[in-house]
Amino acid sequence: FCSSTTPITATLFPGDGIGPEIAESVKKVFTTAGVPIDWEEHFVGTEIDPRTQSFLTWESLESVRRNKVGLKGPMATPIGKGHRSLNLTLRKELNLYANVRPCYSLPGYKTRYDDVNLITIRENTEGEYSGLEHQVVRGVVESLKIITRQASLRVAEYAFHYAKTHGRERVSAIHKANIMQKTDGLFLKCCREVAEKYPEITYEEVVIDNCCMMLVKNPALFDVLVMPNLYGDIISDLCAGLVGGLGLTPSCNIGEDGVALAEAVHELGKPNSIATEWSDDVASPEAERTSRTDPQSNHQHHSRGKIQNRGSWRKFDHHGLHKGNLFMSSSNYDGILLGMGNPLLDI
Amino acid sequence: FCSSTTPITATLFPGDGIGPEIAESVKKVFTTAGVPIDWEEHFVGTEIDPRTQSFLTWESLESVRRNKVGLKGPMATPIGKGHRSLNLTLRKELNLYANVRPCYSLPGYKTRYDDVNLITIRENTEGEYSGLEHQVVRGVVESLKIITRQASLRVAEYAFHYAKTHGRERVSAIHKANIMQKTDGLFLKCCREVAEKYPEITYEEVVIDNCCMMLVKNPALFDVLVMPNLYGDIISDLCAGLVGGLGLTPSCNIGEDGVALAEAVHELGKPNSIATEWSDDVASPEAERTSRTDPQSNHQHHSRGKIQNRGSWRKFDHHGLHKGNLFMSSSNYDGILLGMGNPLLDI
Ligand SMILES: CC(C)[C@H](C(=O)O)[C@@H](O)C(=O)O
Ligand SMILES: CC(C)[C@H](C(=O)O)[C@@H](O)C(=O)O
Repeated sequence: FCSSTTPITATLFPGDGIGPEIAESVKKVFTTAGVPIDWEEHFVGTEIDPRTQSFLTWESLESVRRNKVGLKGPMATPIGKGHRSLNLTLRKELNLYANVRPCYSLPGYKTRYDDVNLITIRENTEGEYSGLEHQVVRGVVESLKIITRQASLRVAEYAFHYAKTHGRERVSAIHKANIMQKTDGLFLKCCREVAEKYPEITYEEVVIDNCCMMLVKNPALFDVLVMPNLYGDIISDLCAGLVGGLGLTPSCNIGEDGVALAEAVHELGKPNSIATEWSDDVASPEAERTSRTDPQSNHQHHSRGKIQNRGSWRKFDHHGLHKGNLFMSSSNYDGILLGMGNPLLDI
Repeated sequence: FCSSTTPITATLFPGDGIGPEIAESVKKVFTTAGVPIDWEEHFVGTEIDPRTQSFLTWESLESVRRNKVGLKGPMATPIGKGHRSLNLTLRKELNLYANVRPCYSLPGYKTRYDDVNLITIRENTEGEYSGLEHQVVRGVVESLKIITRQASLRVAEYAFHYAKTHGRERVSAIHKANIMQKTDGLFLKCCREVAEKYPEITYEEVVIDNCCMMLVKNPALFDVLVMPNLYGDIISDLCAGLVGGLGLTPSCNIGEDGVALAEAVHELGKPNSIATEWSDDVASPEAERTSRTDPQSNHQHHSRGKIQNRGSWRKFDHHGLHKGNLFMSSSNYDGILLGMGNPLLDI
């Protein structure tokens, strides 16, 4: 991908917030790096598309389906009712069944860990994200976690195939089957079935609580991790934290028909931690505290980073802007850039 | 409690595995420390008690109810069908609604973090631990997460009261209400209601994935954390990892009628990571790898630790034994001992 000279066409969703600003730089970086890409840009709409029930248009989705490859910036769900989360709409409509997030300690980016080298592979379509919830009686609510054989086999297959083709030695399935024997039990059963087909890859099962403890004690114990949706959400962010933050761990969403949508993840700050409506993105206590202690400033962040491109490291600067009260600067700038030199696009 | 001179009666469940060995030492430690306790020992049974449907007898439960205070060692559920997990039975039968786990960086016990000083408060009775699971059709299973107003208010009240009475300044409610709007949404609603009554305590809400990232980047951001069952399970273990492991973070289970059951948590190793039946405890990849690389040895672990007692530090040695293939030595020895000098018993 990176070394191709014939331009390829890729979809670009600049997203919202600081997304468009980032998108402009991304285009420049690809050009500078000598990777010709014809970008097909699609903006997050301002009106709900009745066909997707979200602020994402059908045309945007068609563009990814056609180009097979896309890059998305941050997308916060505009607050309001009667629409679906943009991120979830994308995953669902494009059948993006696996989220792959490589997580490495970056030389020069100092954290408490210097030996992280793992890949989280997250089931991206079901589990705790079913959206099925209801009130049983007043004061008693329930939500449904759905695990299917089909989706579990599919993501397990992806994980083992990834391990094999990327020189990885071990796949750890993360679960809580001692409590959720049927749901997580089915997930494990599927992983074991697939493991049989890859005798050269070591397979192990680790309970999620224990996994988190081991990750913070000794992340070098892990190689490829595969897990249901929510555990993947949690563990991929934990791992991002080990190497410095979300901005350093761009990820890729893999779809069934060869579709791949890379994404930059970012940290959002909210002016008030007690939100009454949920936006689609996380509130970072760090960003929040910055804004608390220094409420007047414009929060210009400056940071230095490096991008790895064809084996050499180049320095770059970036700054993000605190836009009004809603968006706090983020390190996702790095994220998108780093995406280039990552195995992300090597899928 | 610790400075009382009239003996009090407390229940002791030595548990299984290395539990009985630990229990003997615990008794000696309390005696040496000049804390007179009449221990009422109850062993984990070898037959299922029809009244509890588990290997725990009704008499054992009655003992805790009567004494109001107890200490439990590790309890692995014997493998087999038709019985309930011992840990879950205890929580359920004694209505142990809050698990409180203080987590401090210990001077002299070096980890990558030296500034951890937080308390995790976990809802202990419902959520993802409902036990309600079924197969919808072949290959499709679901599990139910239940959140109730009553249990959420109760644990939130405990958290804020704890914060207030222990000189803590901030309570963070951990959730995923951007995805589980109804269940986690109800949990947050209850936390907010209780927060209103404690204007002197800062209240904030943090999404679980973001929380895990912040914890590994900067745990000093957190003070008291309150959360639904599974998040508590995950985050309390993550935090234990920050300060060195489960053995350093004994916890206490709080019941409604003044009942408190302290517990040592331990790390178990299994000879084979692919288990077909679930035992009640975690398989530690670390322990596992030890056993892989050195399958013949007896796995005598020796470690040095310290216990804090009435402000002074004493050294002690401990070793755990690898019993047969099932139990790997653990650091829970420290756990129980450290429990003494912890605010655990100061409830
Ligand atoms: C924003 C949110 C819906 C999303 C998720 O939970 O999947 C985010 O945390 C992520 O990991 O992409
Ligand atoms: C052993 C298991 C059932 C238990 C749990 O998940 O609650 C353990 O992890 C704990 O935290 O006490």
